Amino acid sequence: MRQRCGLWLMGARGSVATTAITGLLALRAGLVRPVGCVTERLDMDHTVLPTWDEIIVGGHDIVSIPLDKRAEQLAESGLIPHSVFTAVADGLRAVDTELRSGYHPVSHTGSQAAAAARLAADITDFRARHSLDRVVVVNVTSTEPPVPALPEHDDLDLLDRALNDPQRTVLPPSSLGAYAALTTGSPYVDFTPSPGIRMPALVELARRQDLPYAGADGKTGETLLRTVLAPMFVARALNVRSWAGTNLLGGGDGANLADPDQAKGKLESKARGLAQLIGDVTAPLHIDNVPDLAERKIAWDYVSFEGFLGAKMSLQFTWDGYDSALAAPLVLDLARLVGAAHADGQSGALPALAFFFKDPLGTDEHRFAEQTRMLAQWAADL
Amino acid sequence: MRQRCGLWLMGARGSVATTAITGLLALRAGLVRPVGCVTERLDMDHTVLPTWDEIIVGGHDIVSIPLDKRAEQLAESGLIPHSVFTAVADGLRAVDTELRSGYHPVSHTGSQAAAAARLAADITDFRARHSLDRVVVVNVTSTEPPVPALPEHDDLDLLDRALNDPQRTVLPPSSLGAYAALTTGSPYVDFTPSPGIRMPALVELARRQDLPYAGADGKTGETLLRTVLAPMFVARALNVRSWAGTNLLGGGDGANLADPDQAKGKLESKARGLAQLIGDVTAPLHIDNVPDLAERKIAWDYVSFEGFLGAKMSLQFTWDGYDSALAAPLVLDLARLVGAAHADGQSGALPALAFFFKDPLGTDEHRFAEQTRMLAQWAADL
Amino acid sequence: MRQRCGLWLMGARGSVATTAITGLLALRAGLVRPVGCVTERLDMDHTVLPTWDEIIVGGHDIVSIPLDKRAEQLAESGLIPHSVFTAVADGLRAVDTELRSGYHPVSHTGSQAAAAARLAADITDFRARHSLDRVVVVNVTSTEPPVPALPEHDDLDLLDRALNDPQRTVLPPSSLGAYAALTTGSPYVDFTPSPGIRMPALVELARRQDLPYAGADGKTGETLLRTVLAPMFVARALNVRSWAGTNLLGGGDGANLADPDQAKGKLESKARGLAQLIGDVTAPLHIDNVPDLAERKIAWDYVSFEGFLGAKMSLQFTWDGYDSALAAPLVLDLARLVGAAHADGQSGALPALAFFFKDPLGTDEHRFAEQTRMLAQWAADL
Amino acid sequence: MRQRCGLWLMGARGSVATTAITGLLALRAGLVRPVGCVTERLDMDHTVLPTWDEIIVGGHDIVSIPLDKRAEQLAESGLIPHSVFTAVADGLRAVDTELRSGYHPVSHTGSQAAAAARLAADITDFRARHSLDRVVVVNVTSTEPPVPALPEHDDLDLLDRALNDPQRTVLPPSSLGAYAALTTGSPYVDFTPSPGIRMPALVELARRQDLPYAGADGKTGETLLRTVLAPMFVARALNVRSWAGTNLLGGGDGANLADPDQAKGKLESKARGLAQLIGDVTAPLHIDNVPDLAERKIAWDYVSFEGFLGAKMSLQFTWDGYDSALAAPLVLDLARLVGAAHADGQSGALPALAFFFKDPLGTDEHRFAEQTRMLAQWAADL
Ligand SMILES: NC(=O)c1ccc[n+]([C@@H]2O[C@H](COP(=O)([O-])OP(=O)(O)OC[C@H]3O[C@@H](n4cnc5c(N)ncnc54)[C@H](O)[C@@H]3O)[C@@H](O)[C@H]2O)c1
Ligand SMILES: NC(=O)c1ccc[n+]([C@@H]2O[C@H](COP(=O)([O-])OP(=O)(O)OC[C@H]3O[C@@H](n4cnc5c(N)ncnc54)[C@H](O)[C@@H]3O)[C@@H](O)[C@H]2O)c1
Ligand SMILES: NC(=O)c1ccc[n+]([C@@H]2O[C@H](COP(=O)([O-])OP(=O)(O)OC[C@H]3O[C@@H](n4cnc5c(N)ncnc54)[C@H](O)[C@@H]3O)[C@@H](O)[C@H]2O)c1
Ligand SMILES: NC(=O)c1ccc[n+]([C@@H]2O[C@H](COP(=O)([O-])OP(=O)(O)OC[C@H]3O[C@@H](n4cnc5c(N)ncnc54)[C@H](O)[C@@H]3O)[C@@H](O)[C@H]2O)c1
Ligand code: NA
Ligand code: NA
Repeated sequence: MRQRCGLWLMGARGSVATTAITGLLALRAGLVRPVGCVTERLDMDHTVLPTWDEIIVGGHDIVSIPLDKRAEQLAESGLIPHSVFTAVADGLRAVDTELRSGYHPVSHTGSQAAAAARLAADITDFRARHSLDRVVVVNVTSTEPPVPALPEHDDLDLLDRALNDPQRTVLPPSSLGAYAALTTGSPYVDFTPSPGIRMPALVELARRQDLPYAGADGKTGETLLRTVLAPMFVARALNVRSWAGTNLLGGGDGANLADPDQAKGKLESKARGLAQLIGDVTAPLHIDNVPDLAERKIAWDYVSFEGFLGAKMSLQFTWDGYDSALAAPLVLDLARLVGAAHADGQSGALPALAFFFKDPLGTDEHRFAEQTRMLAQWAADL
Repeated sequence: MRQRCGLWLMGARGSVATTAITGLLALRAGLVRPVGCVTERLDMDHTVLPTWDEIIVGGHDIVSIPLDKRAEQLAESGLIPHSVFTAVADGLRAVDTELRSGYHPVSHTGSQAAAAARLAADITDFRARHSLDRVVVVNVTSTEPPVPALPEHDDLDLLDRALNDPQRTVLPPSSLGAYAALTTGSPYVDFTPSPGIRMPALVELARRQDLPYAGADGKTGETLLRTVLAPMFVARALNVRSWAGTNLLGGGDGANLADPDQAKGKLESKARGLAQLIGDVTAPLHIDNVPDLAERKIAWDYVSFEGFLGAKMSLQFTWDGYDSALAAPLVLDLARLVGAAHADGQSGALPALAFFFKDPLGTDEHRFAEQTRMLAQWAADL
Repeated sequence: MRQRCGLWLMGARGSVATTAITGLLALRAGLVRPVGCVTERLDMDHTVLPTWDEIIVGGHDIVSIPLDKRAEQLAESGLIPHSVFTAVADGLRAVDTELRSGYHPVSHTGSQAAAAARLAADITDFRARHSLDRVVVVNVTSTEPPVPALPEHDDLDLLDRALNDPQRTVLPPSSLGAYAALTTGSPYVDFTPSPGIRMPALVELARRQDLPYAGADGKTGETLLRTVLAPMFVARALNVRSWAGTNLLGGGDGANLADPDQAKGKLESKARGLAQLIGDVTAPLHIDNVPDLAERKIAWDYVSFEGFLGAKMSLQFTWDGYDSALAAPLVLDLARLVGAAHADGQSGALPALAFFFKDPLGTDEHRFAEQTRMLAQWAADL
Repeated sequence: MRQRCGLWLMGARGSVATTAITGLLALRAGLVRPVGCVTERLDMDHTVLPTWDEIIVGGHDIVSIPLDKRAEQLAESGLIPHSVFTAVADGLRAVDTELRSGYHPVSHTGSQAAAAARLAADITDFRARHSLDRVVVVNVTSTEPPVPALPEHDDLDLLDRALNDPQRTVLPPSSLGAYAALTTGSPYVDFTPSPGIRMPALVELARRQDLPYAGADGKTGETLLRTVLAPMFVARALNVRSWAGTNLLGGGDGANLADPDQAKGKLESKARGLAQLIGDVTAPLHIDNVPDLAERKIAWDYVSFEGFLGAKMSLQFTWDGYDSALAAPLVLDLARLVGAAHADGQSGALPALAFFFKDPLGTDEHRFAEQTRMLAQWAADL
C-alpha cells in the first residue's frame, strides 16, 4: 500500500541532491521521462512505491546557497536543461524552505549528542509537518576521509557516553548524521564512501530500532563499468594482469577529492571491488581535480590481459558522464525502495541493493549482472 | 564417463584451427596453462569431458600449406610464442597427416552428393582409424556470403534430390560440410556466420540423426563486449541513442572480409545481437582490412546515451586482441562440451552454449551474464 | 587602411554560417572573447583587417528558416550559449533581412546565366546598399558530389556559351555561385569540398577579374590533426603502416554526408592530404551520420606504425568537437584576410591560406606547422 | 671528413643501450632498415657522419648481466625480433668485452675524484685501444632524483676541491659521469632527466675543454606528442583548459620511476615543456609502474579545450609504444650528430638538437615542428 514518503537529503545543496530535487519536480510536472530511474523499469508491484508526488523533500546542508541558484549553476554547466530549470524554479524555492543547517564540527559548540538531537528534531519536525509515513535519510554530503578506529565505534553504550562529553568529537559528521537519522526511526542510505553507518555501534542502533539501511557509495561510473566488465574476463578464463584507472572530475566532488586525504576513502572503496572481482592485480588508480570539466567526469581505464598461449591483449575505455545525472535518479530509486522495505518491515543491511553501490553493505557480491538479478528478485517479492 | 573424442576441423589450416591445434599440443605437453579455456573453470563433473590427451584432431582444408609452416607464420606475427612453436612442431607434422582436401565448388566436378559422401568418408575413416567414440565437427572455414533462399533448403527430401543433380550447386560449402558431418552421425558446431547448418532441411537431418549442434559465429571481441555492456544500459534505464563500431583486422579473416559480400553475413550477425539487446538505434558498423595488423584485431565502439534530464554522455572502448587466441580455446571447449552433450544423448540446438556465439542457435538470449549462468547450470547438470 | 568589408555567405542559414553570424554579433557586443579567431593572434598590421564592426553580413540560402530560429536550435544543441543567443537575437533578425534565395537547379527555370546574373545582382545590391569597399563571398553550402568533367569546365568561352543555353545545367550550384561572385568583382573562398571555383574556366575568370581566391574545404577536425601528426612520423623516420579513421557526425552536414555520393568529395579531399604527407598507406575512412550527436563530431583515428627493429606501435586519438564552433571563426578570419589581400591588390589562389584548408589551392603544402609559418609570414607582410 | 667515432654508453646494459647496440649490429649486417634513424633522412652532407661501421661501442654499467642475456630478455618481451637477436648474439658478446663497471656511491670507497679518474681512464683506454678520433659519451643510466643545490655545483674550483675530499659525495652519479667524460675531452649527451651536466660548474668545465654537449631527457612518447599537438591549439587560438596525462610503463624504467622520488625529475621535465607551450593550465600527470607491460609504454592524454563562443571540446590520445625502440635510434643519431659537431669544432650546448629532448639545453624552443626546422638547417650547414 502506497504511503507518503519523506526524502531527507544530507548535503541537500550539493550537485547530486540538487539534480535529484530538480528532476523530481520535473518528473512530477511531466516535463521529462524517467530516464535513469531503475524503479520505473523493474517488474514489480509498483503500488508499493511512492509516486513522484508522494516523495516530499527536505534536508541538511552546511552552505546556504539557495537551491535555485545552485540549480542555475548546474544548468549553466550543461547538466540541467535551461527550460527545465525555468519551469521548476518556483518549486526549488519551495523546497528550499524545507532545508536546515547541517552539523559542522568547526562551527558547533557543545556535545555531539546535542548536535545529533538537533538534527533529529529537524527530521521529526519535517515528518510531522508533512504527515509523512516515514522519512528515508540519504547521505549525499562531501566525501570524508577515513577515521581512526575508536572503541566507542564498536559499542553503542560507550558511544552514547562519549557523545555526551562536550570535550570529544568521537563521530565524523556522516556518522553523526546516521546516528541522528536512526534515533528518529528513519531508514538510512549511505550514498558516499564516508564512514556513515559503517560502525558496529551504529549497526547495533539500527538493529535496536528495527531499521533497514543500505550503502555504500553510489556506483555510477568507472566502478560500474568495472563490475560489468571484470566478470567477463573471469567467465572467459582470461588472465587480467593489470587494470589501471584515471578519473578526471570537476565540481564540488572534484575539489573535495583533490585532497588526497578525502580521496582515500573513495580510492579504497573502488579498489576493494576490483580485488573482489579478479583478485590481486596491479591496479594504479588516480582521481584528479580538473575544474574546467565542471559537472562532467571522465574515466579512462586500461586493462591488460593474457589469453591462450600467453597472447597479450588489452581493453581500454573512456567514460564521459555527468556524474550527478547518473546519481540523482538512483537517489530517488533508493528513497522508493528503502521506503518500501521499511513499510514491508525489513531491517538491517539490504544486500539486494548492492546494484546501486561501489561497496555494498550486507554482501560481497560485486558482479553487476548478479546484482541486477538480486534486485529484480527482491523487488518482485516486495 | 570419459571417452575418446575426435575434433574434425573444417578449415584446419586457418588461423583459428592452427592456433587451436598448437595450443592443444602445448596443453598436452604441459607447456602452457589453459588460459582462455572455459571448461577448465566450470564447476562441473570434469570426468564427462575428454582430457587434452583424449581429443584427437583431423580436418579438411582447401589449401595445402603444411600445418607447421602455418604455425610458424603465426609465431612470427606474435600470436604463438616461438618456444611453444618449436616444442610442438613435430606434433603439428603428425596432425598434418590427418588433414584431407576440403570441398571447393570451383575445383569439384560431379554432384554435391558425391562431394558430401567423400567428406563423410574422410570423417568416418578418421573415427575408425583412431577408435574414437565420436567426432565433433567444427566449421572454422572462411566466412561465406549469405545465400539466396531456395525451396530445397527447407525440405530434406527436395534437398537430397537436388544434391544428386550434377548440374546443380544447391548448398554453399559450409552447408555441404554440415550435411556431410550429420550423415556420419557427428555433432556439429558452426563457429562462423556462414549458412552452415542454419537451414530447415539440415535441422531436420540433425533431428533424424538425433544429433546435437551449436552455433553460430564465435563471440570473441566487439560483440562479446557489446553483450556485456548493453545489459548495463538497460538495467540502469539509460537511453542508448547510437552505438557505432569500427573493426580493423588483418590475417586471412581480414582479407576475406575486405570483400563486402563476404562481410555481409558477419555484419548482419553482429547487428542482430545489438538490436536484440537494446532495440533499434543508429548503429553504423565497419570491418576494414588492415593487413599490417596481421593476426591482431582492433575494435573501437562509441556509445552515445542519455541519462536523467536528458544529459548527454558517452562510453567508448578500444579492444586490441589476437582474434585467434581468443577463438582457439573456445573451439576446444566446444569440442569437449558438444562431445559431452552427445555422450549424454542430447540432440537439437544447444541453447546453453549461447555463451560462445554472436548469433546463438536455439535461443534469443544475447546477454552475456545470462548466457554465463545458462552455461554454468547446464554444465553442472551434465 | 581599414575599409568596410562585406561577407556574403552562400549557405547563410546553415550551422557554420549561423554560428559565424552569431559569433560576429557577440564579438561586436563584447559578449565573448575571440577564441578560435586566428587573425586576433597573428603578429601583423591589424589596421589592414576590418574590425568586427566593419564586417557586414549578407548571403544566399535555399531554405527559409529564420536565422534566429536556426540559432535557437544551435543553442539547444549546446553549440551556442543561451545567454549569447538571447543577447543577439535582434541582431540576427536584422541580418535575416540581408539574406536572399539561393540557386537550386530543381526549382530554377531558364538558363544558368540568368541564375548567375540574379545571384550577382544580389551581391552588387548588397555592396551598394551598405557602401562596402568589397564583398568576400564564402561558400558554406552543403557539400556537393564530384561532377563529371566537361570541356566547358576547361574553357571560359565555351562555358559562357553553355550557361546561356536554357537546356543545359553545366555547372553545379557551388561553381555557379563562384562564377556569380567573380563576375561581381568579389574575391571568393571555398570552405567546402564542392567543385566551386576549382575549374580552369573559373580560375581564368578570376584571372581576368584580377581577383584573389582561397580554398578548399575548411580544416577543422580529423584532417587538422592528421596534418599536425603525420609530419612527426616523417621527421622521426617512423614507418606508418596504416591510418584508419571513422567520423561520426550529426547536424545538416551529417545528414548530407550520409549519402555516399555527397560524401565522396569529402573523403577524397581527406585522402589526398594524407597521401601527400606520408605516401600510400592502408587508410580506410568512414563518415557516419549519427543524428543524436547533433552539432558534435567525433573522429577516431588509429595509426599503426613500425619503429627501430620492426617494433609495432600505435597511436590512436578521439576528437570530440563542435564542428561549426571550429569552422565559424575561421570563416571570419578568411573574410578579413582575403579582404585584406584584395585591398592589397593580390590575385589568384592564395597559398598562404593553406593553413585553413584540407585541400589547399595554390600549393601542395599540407604540413600544418609549415602552413602556420606561411600564414604568419604572409600576414606580417600585408 | 669521416672519422672513427666511439659511443660510450653510461648504463650500457639497460634497455635503451642494449637496443641501440643490437640495432647497430643489425644495421651493420644489413639485417634491418634504419627505421627511426633521423640522420638517415636528413638532407645533409652524409660524409660528415660516421657510418654504422665507424661507430664503436663501449660503456659503463653497475650491473653485470651479459649483454646477450639482456638482449634475449628484450627479444622475449617482443622488442627485438628473435631472428635479429640470434644473428647478432656473437657481436653482443664482443661488445660486452668493452663494458666496464660504473660508479655507484654505495660500493665506492675513496674520493669522488678518484672515481672520476677511474671512469675517465676507462674512456681514454677505449679511445686509444680502438684508435678513435673521438668518443661521444651518452648517459642512459636509470633516472636519478633531483639533487639539493650546493655552492660546489656552481663553481668548478670549489667542486674540484670537494671531489678530492673522501668524506664527501658532492655529485650524483650522472654528474660524476659527465665530469669524467669532459675531463677526457669527450662530448657529452644527457638522454635522461638526471642532473648530469646541468650544473654551472660542469658547463664551465665543458667551456674550458671546448666541448659540445646536448640534452636533456630523450623525447619519445607523450612529450613528443604534446610538443606536436600543443602548437596546433596555439596556432588556432583555441583555449586549452586542462591537459591530463597518465603513463603506464614496465621494464627497468617503470620499476625505477615507481619511486616517487626518482619520478620527480621526469615529471618536472615533462611539465616544464607543456607550460612553455601553452602556459599554466591544470595538468595532472602520473607515471605508474605496470610490470606486465614489460618494455611497452602506454600514455593516455586528455586535453579539454574551449573554442568559439565557449564551446567545450576535447582531444584524447593513447600512445602504445616500445620506449626503447623509440629511444635507441635517437641515441645512434646523437652519437653521429654530436660527433660531427665536435669534429666541426663546435662547443657549448647544441640548441639545434632540441628535436631530441624533453627539456632542451641551450634553447626554450619546445615546438616540435620548429625543432625539426632547426635541426634540418643546422645539419645542412655541417
Ligand atoms: N555520481 C555521483 O555523483 C556520485 C557517486 C557516488 C558517490 N557520490 C558522492 O556523493 C556525495 C555528493 O556528491 P556531489 O557531487 O553532490 O558533491 P557536492 O560537493 O556538490 O555536494 C556535497 C554537499 O554536501 C554538503 N555538506 C558537506 N558536509 C556536510 C555536512 N556535514 N552536513 C551537511 N551537508 C554537508 C556540501 O556543502 C555540499 O553542498 C559525494 O560524497 C560523492 O563522493 C557521488
Ligand atoms: N576470433 C576469431 O578468430 C573468430 C571469431 C568468430 C568467427 N570466426 C570465424 O572463423 C573462421 C576462421 O577464421 P580464421 O581467422 O581462422 O580465418 P583464416 O582465413 O585464417 O582460415 C580459414 C581457413 O578455411 C579454409 N577454407 C576456406 N574454405 C574452405 C572450405 N570450403 N573447406 C575447407 N576449408 C576451407 C581456408 O583455406 C583457411 O585455411 C572465419 O569464418 C571467421 O569469421 C573467427
Ligand atoms: N567544421 C565544419 O563545420 C566544416 C569544415 C569543413 C567544411 N565544412 C563544410 O561547410 C559546409 C556547411 O556545413 P554546415 O555544417 O553549415 O552544413 P549545414 O547543412 O548546416 O548548412 C548548409 C547550408 O547550405 C544551404 N544550401 C545548400 N545548397 C545551397 C545552395 N545551392 N545555395 C545556397 N545555400 C545552399 C543549406 O540549405 C544549408 O542551410 C558543408 O559543405 C561542410 O562540409 C564544414
Ligand atoms: N624512450 C625511452 O626509453 C627513454 C626516453 C627518455 C629518457 N629515457 C631515460 O633513459 C634511461 C634509461 O632507460 P632504460 O629504459 O634503458 O632503463 P633501464 O633501467 O633498462 O637501464 C638503466 C641502466 O642504467 C644502469 N645504471 C644505473 N645507475 C648507473 C650508474 N651509476 N652507472 C652506470 N650504469 C648505471 C642500470 O644498471 C641499467 O642497466 C632512463 O633514465 C630513462 O628515463 C628513456
Ligand atoms: Na538466436
Ligand atoms: Na593543393
